[in-house]
Amino acid sequence: MKNIILASQSPRRKHLLGLLYPDFNVIPSSFDEDIPYTGKPSEYAQELAKGKAELVAKKIDSGLIIGADTIVVLKDQQLGKPETEEHAFTILKTLSGNTHTVYTGVSLIEKEHGKHKEHTFSVATYVTFRDLSDDEILAYIKTGSPMDKAGSYGIQDDWGAVFVSHIHGDYYNVVGFPLQAFYSAVKHHFPDYLPQVHKLA
Amino acid sequence: MKNIILASQSPRRKHLLGLLYPDFNVIPSSFDEDIPYTGKPSEYAQELAKGKAELVAKKIDSGLIIGADTIVVLKDQQLGKPETEEHAFTILKTLSGNTHTVYTGVSLIEKEHGKHKEHTFSVATYVTFRDLSDDEILAYIKTGSPMDKAGSYGIQDDWGAVFVSHIHGDYYNVVGFPLQAFYSAVKHHFPDYLPQVHKLA
Repeated sequence: MKNIILASQSPRRKHLLGLLYPDFNVIPSSFDEDIPYTGKPSEYAQELAKGKAELVAKKIDSGLIIGADTIVVLKDQQLGKPETEEHAFTILKTLSGNTHTVYTGVSLIEKEHGKHKEHTFSVATYVTFRDLSDDEILAYIKTGSPMDKAGSYGIQDDWGAVFVSHIHGDYYNVVGFPLQAFYSAVKHHFPDYLPQVHKLA
Repeated sequence: MKNIILASQSPRRKHLLGLLYPDFNVIPSSFDEDIPYTGKPSEYAQELAKGKAELVAKKIDSGLIIGADTIVVLKDQQLGKPETEEHAFTILKTLSGNTHTVYTGVSLIEKEHGKHKEHTFSVATYVTFRDLSDDEILAYIKTGSPMDKAGSYGIQDDWGAVFVSHIHGDYYNVVGFPLQAFYSAVKHHFPDYLPQVHKLA
């Protein structure tokens, strides 16, 4: 069994990666994410993902390290994780009735006998919210779920599911990890680490 | 607590409706789905959903009955549930590298003191598969999951997730029940039955 290391402590990413690999390690990265937004969302998400993966790669001898970062962008503005409940309300009010873009950057680093190979990419998904009432937004904030999420929502939440009218792109990218693009990237660049999904059955 | 009745025994629909209502009843419909495909997918999915809901509505005095049916269409051809593993292989081979459409028809019937109010609609989502290898298709069929599913796949399966490159529309509609459109329909037509999602938190 090859050593797979997820450089993220997001429970969503752990869950999604668990769909592909029965067994992997989690080493949260201490990478400082406090980098000013560059205005280029795809590159920015990749930079953060790569920073996370590289810090963890320094600590291990052999394996595939996976870094990832998700950002939410509406009209050139990056909407991060909310700092307060009021902030979450403002963000959700901004998303209401609009289409925003979710970018997840993924950085893959293979270390093996001194070898160091890296491949970094990002995936964009367009997400359209229906018009939300203030009551619906408040009820959602009351659940606590918006507080640890970029854009103050989880598409996989009960409320998230009834807020989003449609998406264009990969659903799992919005949850926080683009499974199909990851699988294809591993298939092409790191075939030794290709998930043997059918062994799970 | 109002009486909600799901006229479907699909475990996916039970799970999705459970995101909205903490409590509901399941009464599988004995409606005969063996109706020839009309070539009009939206109307066809609605006809099946309505047939299911109406049969169950006859059995109960009061409540909201929910019927649903999902069909998969590629190039004017309806791809139903596979009859054999070979059939599943043929269907997945057809979906490979193509964009198909998933239609879910939903029929809502409210019964109350002799009142009988019905609202039926359907939602379409476009789903694009990347090119699949025969080995990947065979590995997926080996899991058994394709056999009870329209189009021979579940987008929520491990393999399903890495087969689908992107979608256009509602993700949950592909799983089998369009949560956002359902919520909005209940809000507008059957407000007494609006899910109190925040009570779950």
